[in-house]
Amino acid sequence: MHSTDHSSYMKELKARIDQELEQFFREREKDSLDPVCRTVSEHIKAFTMNGGKRLRPMLIVLGHNLFAPHDDKVFRAAISMELTQTYLLIHDDIMDQSEIRRGKPSLHVAVRNQMPGQVSDAKRISENIAIVAGDLADSLAHQALLQCGMDPSDVLRANVELSRIIEMTGYGQLIDIDSATNDSFGQRDLLRLHILKTAKYTIEGPLILGAMLSGTKEDVKPLSYYGTLLGTAFQLHDDILGLFGDEAETGKSIKSDVNEGKKTLLMLKAMENTSPENREFIKKCLACGDVSDNDFHKLRQIVKDSGSYDYSRKMMESMIEKSKEYLSQVKGDAEIKEFLKWLAHYIIERKS
Amino acid sequence: MHSTDHSSYMKELKARIDQELEQFFREREKDSLDPVCRTVSEHIKAFTMNGGKRLRPMLIVLGHNLFAPHDDKVFRAAISMELTQTYLLIHDDIMDQSEIRRGKPSLHVAVRNQMPGQVSDAKRISENIAIVAGDLADSLAHQALLQCGMDPSDVLRANVELSRIIEMTGYGQLIDIDSATNDSFGQRDLLRLHILKTAKYTIEGPLILGAMLSGTKEDVKPLSYYGTLLGTAFQLHDDILGLFGDEAETGKSIKSDVNEGKKTLLMLKAMENTSPENREFIKKCLACGDVSDNDFHKLRQIVKDSGSYDYSRKMMESMIEKSKEYLSQVKGDAEIKEFLKWLAHYIIERKS
Repeated sequence: MHSTDHSSYMKELKARIDQELEQFFREREKDSLDPVCRTVSEHIKAFTMNGGKRLRPMLIVLGHNLFAPHDDKVFRAAISMELTQTYLLIHDDIMDQSEIRRGKPSLHVAVRNQMPGQVSDAKRISENIAIVAGDLADSLAHQALLQCGMDPSDVLRANVELSRIIEMTGYGQLIDIDSATNDSFGQRDLLRLHILKTAKYTIEGPLILGAMLSGTKEDVKPLSYYGTLLGTAFQLHDDILGLFGDEAETGKSIKSDVNEGKKTLLMLKAMENTSPENREFIKKCLACGDVSDNDFHKLRQIVKDSGSYDYSRKMMESMIEKSKEYLSQVKGDAEIKEFLKWLAHYIIERKS
Repeated sequence: MHSTDHSSYMKELKARIDQELEQFFREREKDSLDPVCRTVSEHIKAFTMNGGKRLRPMLIVLGHNLFAPHDDKVFRAAISMELTQTYLLIHDDIMDQSEIRRGKPSLHVAVRNQMPGQVSDAKRISENIAIVAGDLADSLAHQALLQCGMDPSDVLRANVELSRIIEMTGYGQLIDIDSATNDSFGQRDLLRLHILKTAKYTIEGPLILGAMLSGTKEDVKPLSYYGTLLGTAFQLHDDILGLFGDEAETGKSIKSDVNEGKKTLLMLKAMENTSPENREFIKKCLACGDVSDNDFHKLRQIVKDSGSYDYSRKMMESMIEKSKEYLSQVKGDAEIKEFLKWLAHYIIERKS
């Protein structure tokens, strides 16, 4: 396949996943629900359908098709990861007190916006409803996977993987929360965080979940290493976009990572390799919550001058190279492997 | 079995379930975790081990043993309901802003108590950690069930049931949140709430989950009706204990239901069958958040005089009778059926 074929294949998969999600929600609309439950279910659906690239379910399909002939039932299993994404993002937005998600109100804000004006404690109540909505989305995720109709033993193993993904992501989330107040948070901790919160959840987990569904007896370790390396590179690239990207393309404020105080590898390495004054300046920027244009430009300059930008880029690129070495050891369908090789580059070249 | 045999059998089952939980947590301690994750895992364990009657996992064992010879693996599957209980209670305590659970600090409070004094926003951070802790407990629940080692097809069906239990409980929770501000909330809504939030979750769901694990081909509908009726009666009894019970035995303030503004059947029926002045008085008591001793005694008197207390008791008793009729239609082990018959009475005669 050529790279245009690869991107049109990606679009095809995305369209098919969107269709499966629509179908899943439509089937459930038949359930007669109390009005309040129906409203929340509609919020969950709207939140999910307003989704992004569908990368995670796509990787489930690819993980399966690496080791077994295509089976359309895999799409039902695959949407479990998108429903899991809904679940975790709803809870994330409460934790971060984020008002916006993918250009629209986050779920707890959408619920709050629908409340009559006179309700006292509307903020708390809408957050409570959103906690439950997240839990419901998780239950839907498991049901989609469990009822996909594939071989029971394979589905069982895949569901263990789904649960492990959620568990690991939870640990990543805890390390992330801790990092804000942990002064000794260093590169090692950061990479652990990226592996748990991004690589497992976004790349490696979905691929392995798909492989489990195929019932393969092949060793999936090389695929697992490919996914972990690519996923970590994905996060490093995200952090670079977060500081040097184009707002119009990323769709989020270029300052938001700094204003959230994110201790990215860019920041950690710059603090390590710059003057004590600059180090204090970086800390100040990360703590202030609302960095000025001038300070933001100075911060970027320090990240470049300290060699931290190059350090992150090089680490990312070497991870991509290494991931491709592992990919070549995967015993599986050659065309899918070609696609995964292309994907490795796509992921660190994307602009959003 | 005599009733002393029944209660000693119950104790035996509880001890075996506690042991299985201990074992489950011990196995996982081997996982090398970051310090913050280990701390949260210890909180999850402590919260779970400080648990109550273990009624839900017990019903899984009984649901299984009704239809199949005892298999010790069922205990591993059974603890999934106790871990689910941990998951839902952690989230509940955040939603209700409860500081105490089972006589000890609720999980978000336990986390907050461990934080160094200078952490700003400690309340928000500890609630965020508790949201993640709940999600982790849910993941553990699924893993315990998925990895119990029983027949994959049966486990799959049982896990669908677990997910449905969580989903239905979520709907119940939404109806509960809504009831506080919904003036047209009536007896029909309340019974829907009890079926979803108590009967499914506490009695019917665990029994059916156990039956699924047995792989039975028998019709489980009579068992399902038994569980739904008994579970609803369980909640009605709980509400009676909440207003007329003995604080020393129930372990919670006799005023707490009223102060939480709970629209129990006792309240709804009293409002329906009393004078307009008394109706306003009841509404005032439920809205005030801190009822006085005098008002509380007057409230109880209205509930008795209006016939509402008798109405609740009669409804509860007729549900128990009906549940036993359905139980007699269950095709399953006679001794377990005897125990379930005894349990129906135990549940509405318990003092705590």
